[in-house]
Amino acid sequence: MRIAGTWHRSVRFDAAEAGVCILDQTLLPHRLQWITLTSPEAVAEAIVTMRVRGAPLIGAVAAYGLALAIRHNPATAAIEAAFSLLLETRPTAINLRWALERVYNAVIALPETERRSQSLAEAEAIAEEDVRTCQMIGEYGLEILTALWAQRSHAQRRLHILTHCNAGWFATVDWGTALAPVYKAHDAGIPVHVWVDETRPRNQGAITALELAQHGVPHTVITDNAGGLLMQRGEVDICIVGTDRTTAHGDVCNKVGTYLKALAARDNGIPFYVGLPTSTIDWQIENGREIPIEDRDASEIHTLHGRQANGEHAAIRVYPQETRFANPAFDVTPGHLVTGLITEWGVYAASQAGLAQLKKDMDA
Amino acid sequence: MRIAGTWHRSVRFDAAEAGVCILDQTLLPHRLQWITLTSPEAVAEAIVTMRVRGAPLIGAVAAYGLALAIRHNPATAAIEAAFSLLLETRPTAINLRWALERVYNAVIALPETERRSQSLAEAEAIAEEDVRTCQMIGEYGLEILTALWAQRSHAQRRLHILTHCNAGWFATVDWGTALAPVYKAHDAGIPVHVWVDETRPRNQGAITALELAQHGVPHTVITDNAGGLLMQRGEVDICIVGTDRTTAHGDVCNKVGTYLKALAARDNGIPFYVGLPTSTIDWQIENGREIPIEDRDASEIHTLHGRQANGEHAAIRVYPQETRFANPAFDVTPGHLVTGLITEWGVYAASQAGLAQLKKDMDA
Repeated sequence: MRIAGTWHRSVRFDAAEAGVCILDQTLLPHRLQWITLTSPEAVAEAIVTMRVRGAPLIGAVAAYGLALAIRHNPATAAIEAAFSLLLETRPTAINLRWALERVYNAVIALPETERRSQSLAEAEAIAEEDVRTCQMIGEYGLEILTALWAQRSHAQRRLHILTHCNAGWFATVDWGTALAPVYKAHDAGIPVHVWVDETRPRNQGAITALELAQHGVPHTVITDNAGGLLMQRGEVDICIVGTDRTTAHGDVCNKVGTYLKALAARDNGIPFYVGLPTSTIDWQIENGREIPIEDRDASEIHTLHGRQANGEHAAIRVYPQETRFANPAFDVTPGHLVTGLITEWGVYAASQAGLAQLKKDMDA
Repeated sequence: MRIAGTWHRSVRFDAAEAGVCILDQTLLPHRLQWITLTSPEAVAEAIVTMRVRGAPLIGAVAAYGLALAIRHNPATAAIEAAFSLLLETRPTAINLRWALERVYNAVIALPETERRSQSLAEAEAIAEEDVRTCQMIGEYGLEILTALWAQRSHAQRRLHILTHCNAGWFATVDWGTALAPVYKAHDAGIPVHVWVDETRPRNQGAITALELAQHGVPHTVITDNAGGLLMQRGEVDICIVGTDRTTAHGDVCNKVGTYLKALAARDNGIPFYVGLPTSTIDWQIENGREIPIEDRDASEIHTLHGRQANGEHAAIRVYPQETRFANPAFDVTPGHLVTGLITEWGVYAASQAGLAQLKKDMDA
């Protein structure tokens, strides 16, 4: 994660201030501001209001939040209360629960005096693993992009990758899931260009554009409506997106609108990949329709934030007061529309058989 | 077209002021302001900047614009210059040319002294016909909605119609194309509810919401990303959209993003209809990929307009200065994804055979 040429991570524990240090993503892309969350309540608020977002990053931040709670009070009842508080922040991403359970299980059998250091160690381990996991996703994804570029390079144009939402380093501790292969390919000299869906209502495309710009990757922002036309025109070589929860049969729950791009990719013979850490797989669910879809506030649609010509921040309302809205945040792309799942274990088919093989490899 | 309970039309010729009177749609949904365009240049500017928009309305306004030019100067060279000026305003909609040619052909064989009155009469005829055409589209569409409601009414919920962009009375002289059937169904007592795509980048969904609200039709605005999820959940019974140009083989060019909804409708077994006057059919083109797709300015994506909490208008920039954008305005939905074309002549298959039958009926 390169900001103005310096490497950072999206989250770190600040021992001096005894808090979880994050970039406030609600201020992006206009302002890069680090804030320190010094209570589990502040961590929960940051997740709910999307100061931090992206399934892998939410998991890591929640783990730090639980460690912070244990630092304040290592009693079992207090730990369980903080666990519930943090778990209830967002319903769709599954590795939020996975990360909290890792910290909980790491300390609950220990005497209270040992819980503080052990919980922090576990949260740090989760964050470290996320970085390595994303790097591996990047390496496996690079193989796909390298092979595709070998087929396309004769056309003497860039390799065009379409992505939806932000599944880059702002959504993880570092590197990203969907974007890790893009960074690896760029660094390997493949002339990539990214079509960035703006991703209404929250415009996470602006965050994706920001991180691609910081890394020097050529990119173009488009409306969520435009990707189908670009695919019809042959201007998209591959789609790569992230996921908030993937089922044991390969259905992919991701930011709303992903399904529409997967349909268009299928209709135009374009490969559609999903980058994911295996911690985002829900092995208990087979059919994606069982995944709870978060409904978010109407204000995300009707009110937009940005900068006026004088540089000052302003919030404007685009719709009349009386208009009603519905704002579901995710949709489900059936596994049969997904070319492959790029995980830290390799690339697997988005099917019952593919997931079974992945499980076998993980358990070996 | 009911505004605050009074019927209006989206365009009329104001004899007293010798100008074309329109609603400035760039001020919608916050302000309903009528303006009078008193020169062909002002008419061309209003079309380019989308003060008027929607293929049928653009055709009618351009016809009045040419009549206005002829009123100022009935010489053939001046007429031809005004014809070119108006034709070049927007490249995708085909009935712009159709309307201009109707006015041109109505006067060009006449002596100059007769051209003024005849050109205005022809423009008035185009506007009148547009109203009748849209009413007929409404009647034929009502038959479809009535049949669908007969199947669905046992579910004891509303009939859910999804639409993209604005193809209502703000896009025509009155009634609309896609929305005429909705108004007719509502007036006939069918409990319709409309899912309104916000339609980035210009948010024409706000205009659709405004006219549905004025007519009392229940509706909910959603992001362009959300429609696929709603269809997966069984919350959409039918899609109806408009079109800017339809080919002789039934491919439908409409506001960018339409194709993605058609794919999702097909994937979920939901009927997908297009409402259109036959003047928007391009009989010269078979494959939709031959239709020129307008690229519009990046500012439509990066800068948004709305009202601040204090009621004042503000323009804000959502993306950094250095971000690049692409902004194609239309896409093409292949005819095989379209359940039927609702025209003033009836409902036809969106295929070579369907269009051939329509042509036969029109020529009979």
